[in-house]
Amino acid sequence: MPLTHFDDQGRARMVDVGHKADTPREAVAKGRVRLKPETLTLIRDGGIKKGDVLAVAQVAGIMAAKRTHELVPMCHPLMLTHVSLQFETQPADDPNGLATIEISATVRTTGKTGVEMEALTAVSVAGLTIYDMCKAVDRAMQIDAIRLVKKSGGKSGDIVLE
Amino acid sequence: MPLTHFDDQGRARMVDVGHKADTPREAVAKGRVRLKPETLTLIRDGGIKKGDVLAVAQVAGIMAAKRTHELVPMCHPLMLTHVSLQFETQPADDPNGLATIEISATVRTTGKTGVEMEALTAVSVAGLTIYDMCKAVDRAMQIDAIRLVKKSGGKSGDIVLE
Amino acid sequence: MPLTHFDDQGRARMVDVGHKADTPREAVAKGRVRLKPETLTLIRDGGIKKGDVLAVAQVAGIMAAKRTHELVPMCHPLMLTHVSLQFETQPADDPNGLATIEISATVRTTGKTGVEMEALTAVSVAGLTIYDMCKAVDRAMQIDAIRLVKKSGGKSGDIVLE
Amino acid sequence: MPLTHFDDQGRARMVDVGHKADTPREAVAKGRVRLKPETLTLIRDGGIKKGDVLAVAQVAGIMAAKRTHELVPMCHPLMLTHVSLQFETQPADDPNGLATIEISATVRTTGKTGVEMEALTAVSVAGLTIYDMCKAVDRAMQIDAIRLVKKSGGKSGDIVLE
Amino acid sequence: MPLTHFDDQGRARMVDVGHKADTPREAVAKGRVRLKPETLTLIRDGGIKKGDVLAVAQVAGIMAAKRTHELVPMCHPLMLTHVSLQFETQPADDPNGLATIEISATVRTTGKTGVEMEALTAVSVAGLTIYDMCKAVDRAMQIDAIRLVKKSGGKSGDIVLE
Amino acid sequence: MPLTHFDDQGRARMVDVGHKADTPREAVAKGRVRLKPETLTLIRDGGIKKGDVLAVAQVAGIMAAKRTHELVPMCHPLMLTHVSLQFETQPADDPNGLATIEISATVRTTGKTGVEMEALTAVSVAGLTIYDMCKAVDRAMQIDAIRLVKKSGGKSGDIVLE
Repeated sequence: MPLTHFDDQGRARMVDVGHKADTPREAVAKGRVRLKPETLTLIRDGGIKKGDVLAVAQVAGIMAAKRTHELVPMCHPLMLTHVSLQFETQPADDPNGLATIEISATVRTTGKTGVEMEALTAVSVAGLTIYDMCKAVDRAMQIDAIRLVKKSGGKSGDIVLE
Repeated sequence: MPLTHFDDQGRARMVDVGHKADTPREAVAKGRVRLKPETLTLIRDGGIKKGDVLAVAQVAGIMAAKRTHELVPMCHPLMLTHVSLQFETQPADDPNGLATIEISATVRTTGKTGVEMEALTAVSVAGLTIYDMCKAVDRAMQIDAIRLVKKSGGKSGDIVLE
Repeated sequence: MPLTHFDDQGRARMVDVGHKADTPREAVAKGRVRLKPETLTLIRDGGIKKGDVLAVAQVAGIMAAKRTHELVPMCHPLMLTHVSLQFETQPADDPNGLATIEISATVRTTGKTGVEMEALTAVSVAGLTIYDMCKAVDRAMQIDAIRLVKKSGGKSGDIVLE
Repeated sequence: MPLTHFDDQGRARMVDVGHKADTPREAVAKGRVRLKPETLTLIRDGGIKKGDVLAVAQVAGIMAAKRTHELVPMCHPLMLTHVSLQFETQPADDPNGLATIEISATVRTTGKTGVEMEALTAVSVAGLTIYDMCKAVDRAMQIDAIRLVKKSGGKSGDIVLE
Repeated sequence: MPLTHFDDQGRARMVDVGHKADTPREAVAKGRVRLKPETLTLIRDGGIKKGDVLAVAQVAGIMAAKRTHELVPMCHPLMLTHVSLQFETQPADDPNGLATIEISATVRTTGKTGVEMEALTAVSVAGLTIYDMCKAVDRAMQIDAIRLVKKSGGKSGDIVLE
Repeated sequence: MPLTHFDDQGRARMVDVGHKADTPREAVAKGRVRLKPETLTLIRDGGIKKGDVLAVAQVAGIMAAKRTHELVPMCHPLMLTHVSLQFETQPADDPNGLATIEISATVRTTGKTGVEMEALTAVSVAGLTIYDMCKAVDRAMQIDAIRLVKKSGGKSGDIVLE
């Protein structure tokens, strides 16, 4: 099965989706930021009295979803009808004693192709934003497990990966 | 130690770097895409006769580095003087039998603040691009271990994390 | 009545409009730039022999309307089918002896949500452009009364605010 | 005194600032959103339990400042070293019984030209964002008095307008 | 026959296409880069052992097509369903002894207006990218004959210009 | 002499200019739009009573110059200090009886690398804008001879190509 993003001469192209039906589509992606437990404590306190890292990350993720086709070369432009992000924090659940912020993004459209990349981009940029805002106190943070967890709509129907 | 991206009332801001010196700065970031060995084989063959997924990912990563400050809300605009990406592929090195593409990005500037976020953004978008171009054949790919590995220049001097 | 841009946990989201019908929609917004009568005279003369401030502002407003969803975080991307701007100038009609340029923007789409923000953004950026091009001669200009004046299409039907 | 944004044939241009010195520059701009007292109450409550309109507006304003030169045609690209926004709310201080959110933006750079437009753009887009997030409950909001209040650095030295 | 991009007062506007039907549309544009035969040799060798200029140009052209409405002021935003580029190289076919790279771009959408500008923009930016990557060895390159060659869909039906 | 945009493994990169001095640099590029004499007449009349195609093209060209590094993958971001465009029209000077609009763009910066690509991009997008605004009356227009005509500053000193 060949990679569909290439033409007969092996050059990249934006795959033709013109013949596909406009159907409601949804994708859910997840990823996690691993960080020191003290950093997570700072973020949580910040939510109350110092500022809200996750509020900024959420706005960044939503805005990035809308610009996915500008970043990922072969992505089609799509009129997103919904984007939301959730964060779940877990103190020190990691074998290395690290805390976790699990980021989850849900994106919907009515269109000719799926919104997996938009959901994955939202998660990635939200993770980068958390990194940026905390890097002065925790340089060893890591963004992990960026993955698609659910997809519905289109010819392939519903897929649950997790 | 407080998070510096917030002002006294707890609102986010772009930290003032006006007093910092313009010095040469470099950052190296890495990340990896985990994928099925068959997918990696397709990518490698593609490099020769079907198209070059990694060439597209590289262009995407370089272009994304330049737009970091548009994506990550509190990032300063910087005049990047160099961006490059490297890819290393490893067949099935993972306990789950997955292959790996290790992405590495090097970014340089002469400026008042570091380029960690630019290097991390380049890696992230290169990873998303690989995902996008292979997702028709491998929906369970995962982007992992996006992290800073080296940083030099500025007041904090050289830091090697890996 | 709660603000619909927030989810159950109080986090911002792009409201889901997927269930709404694609209908023709229009919005008209207005705003005004208050400036010294001499500045208005310069702009008017410029239109003839020195350059055309309002022509530049018009292009800027039209281009900004198309980028509204990149600027206003919770705005949906929309395929605008029409954008136009008009300017009306009034010498010294203000109690403070100031002249006025009234900016009016009309935006249309066929889509699932209204184009108020696009019309308001067009007016705002046209106003900023006038400010920019005249600031060397009039630093005390002010942009005022940016407001929605008409809206039609969608479930709420026609609304005239002025 | 002619408008400097036009050349001898009356065509717009980006004024040449190449001969100017790189000096630290700051600008402060303000503007206000007038809204129903009930809307302001919703925003304030939201800050606690429903979401934080002003946090989203602040991120939007900061991000917009960085893109000023993409929006305002004759603006020079500048490497901003600092952007911050503040909000002050006043219930029903208006002769029409309206409440007010006063938006203030401070922008700094070290460069060849001032950052007035960046501060004014930050205020404008923050105002548009507040409008967007509250428009479902208050269609008659108005954005007013967008103006420069302070400017320092460069040949013209310190200027306080308010 | 007047130019439709202007209103009654002679001001530019984005022409109203709201009444037009959503139909499948395609446009093909072409252009050529004229360069020294040695430069073409370098590009071709590069494709094998030094890097692939045309692969980068192709990604650039595809990404530029998606941003046409941000660049060309009166262009409507459109949801492109397909973009591809082809390159044909001809050594020294020119009366001046120059070699040629012929660039061809095909763009498709289902929408209310044609995609000529998107195809022309893809060709232009692909040409600029080739220029950029070779300018260190050949400063006298020239981009020529950017033109529409085919157009189908919409009220005007199929048009073949070449 | 190898193409400098590629690394040892043949992958594209943004060439390192970090070691170069910040010097004043200028580039002048030109290009021409060939069109039917009647179309040129319409544009000229439009300048007076129907609208001003060239004014819109000029704004488009200036704005595009600022976004060159977003379009051309290996271009460095630069803080442009000046952009201007000129147009010269010639009725029917072409062997095919076509009229010409000669577009000329001048770009300046103080930086580590030249502004050729910015000048060429300004010319290209100005040409595309003229095409767009006239295509309803003249589908066979062609953009030709996009080329660098002058370059100064940097290690290579002054170069005049025309």
